[in-house]
Amino acid sequence: MPRTITAYSNPLVKRVQGLRDKRHRREEGLFLAEGLRILTEARETGRVPRYLFFAAQSARHPLVLALVAAVEERGGEAIETTADILSKLSGKDNPQAVVGVFDQFESTLADLDRHAAPIWLVAERLRDPGNLGTILRTGDAVGAGGLILVGDCVDPFSTEAVRASMGALFTVPIVRTDWDSFLEWLRSGAGQLVGLSLQTDHDYRGAAYAAPTFLLTGNEAQGLPEDYEAACDLLVKLPMLGKADSLNAAVATAVMAYEVLARYRS
Amino acid sequence: MPRTITAYSNPLVKRVQGLRDKRHRREEGLFLAEGLRILTEARETGRVPRYLFFAAQSARHPLVLALVAAVEERGGEAIETTADILSKLSGKDNPQAVVGVFDQFESTLADLDRHAAPIWLVAERLRDPGNLGTILRTGDAVGAGGLILVGDCVDPFSTEAVRASMGALFTVPIVRTDWDSFLEWLRSGAGQLVGLSLQTDHDYRGAAYAAPTFLLTGNEAQGLPEDYEAACDLLVKLPMLGKADSLNAAVATAVMAYEVLARYRS
Repeated sequence: MPRTITAYSNPLVKRVQGLRDKRHRREEGLFLAEGLRILTEARETGRVPRYLFFAAQSARHPLVLALVAAVEERGGEAIETTADILSKLSGKDNPQAVVGVFDQFESTLADLDRHAAPIWLVAERLRDPGNLGTILRTGDAVGAGGLILVGDCVDPFSTEAVRASMGALFTVPIVRTDWDSFLEWLRSGAGQLVGLSLQTDHDYRGAAYAAPTFLLTGNEAQGLPEDYEAACDLLVKLPMLGKADSLNAAVATAVMAYEVLARYRS
Repeated sequence: MPRTITAYSNPLVKRVQGLRDKRHRREEGLFLAEGLRILTEARETGRVPRYLFFAAQSARHPLVLALVAAVEERGGEAIETTADILSKLSGKDNPQAVVGVFDQFESTLADLDRHAAPIWLVAERLRDPGNLGTILRTGDAVGAGGLILVGDCVDPFSTEAVRASMGALFTVPIVRTDWDSFLEWLRSGAGQLVGLSLQTDHDYRGAAYAAPTFLLTGNEAQGLPEDYEAACDLLVKLPMLGKADSLNAAVATAVMAYEVLARYRS
């Protein structure tokens, strides 16, 4: 049976609120995800929250009931609460009907089967959580095998990244690694490393791609380091007809990913 | 000569800080833009801030000097200030070296020459300022004729939208209008209206585009209303191979825009 929490001062409420902070997330190994649709998608992939907070007025919604049952079956805790507390937990004025607290999970390079998908996404020193979440969402859409985060990237379990991923955090495998480990793993088997760059005349549209293709996107402000570009099998650029010389990192990744997808589908 | 402001309590500081709020922006007809690169781009397009705040330690930077000269020539005011005040103005911990306060500007449908560009972007009830700014940035890159905002869209002059646009706010014409006015204007001349939709089997890659193409993106959560879809000359969808059935609105717009661009360039 769900218990009820209505007091802001409840220690669990404080603790869960703290998960919006990176240090607390790391210490606890937990993260927050919100929304009935996303939590239901998570459940369908086998991820069930350790704590599930739901609004009293949503208690009879069939999807909420299914989540509560799944949480209790796994030994987690379902907690009926107020809209105000849900708002506190999520940091949003109009909170979703449910907030879940999940264990963090992660893949390693050794877990990945590079032949499982023709497209893989690799991001290097990605700093913006919205970009990270958006890239995951695109990865889900193009059927990417996973997202490999190289170097000092933003935390994929940050509330903003989880939100922007719209559930793709639960469906797209994520690996956090460093450049040397990534490159060693990549070169131990098949794989074309394609870097997005301004330092090339090779238009992305005319380039020859070979599966499995690893699309490498660099840091938002600085792009890829020179030696990373040198390690690529192919550098491609997107046409830039305007005043600016760059696109948003998540946008550039998506345009590339859809181009490669179209090639492999035709 | 620039004056110096070092007190938080200065009324101009308070007033400029207020521009992060939508109501104040509307009342004042002003908005904030930050960063030496973006303000320099703005200057090159003929937009000069009414007030320019710069950090004392950047006072001798040649681009700052050029901005100060341009501002004073136009009768604006250049203000030397502290990093703390710049931080207050921009709401960021690591503020840029310059913050500019600009007059808002806007185009009307009547201002647009539809034959000036083969691609135009149209967004309907866009709610997220980051998406709006990112779409502007993409619009600059693909050489779009402008961004037409239909219905109740987020404010393009919001600080977050300006930031995400990376200067494209100054280079891509923006029109705010309603659906009926847009459609009447569109149908008064040449133009193919292409809607991004899930309600079609028409793959974006195989579709026939005809310039000038107006790419219509719907609200982030709801997509396009049925009657808007019915008014389109063509509905296209992007392949979705994953669990989710949608992309980020700025990503979907960019993938479409680059597809249309590639067709017109080949």
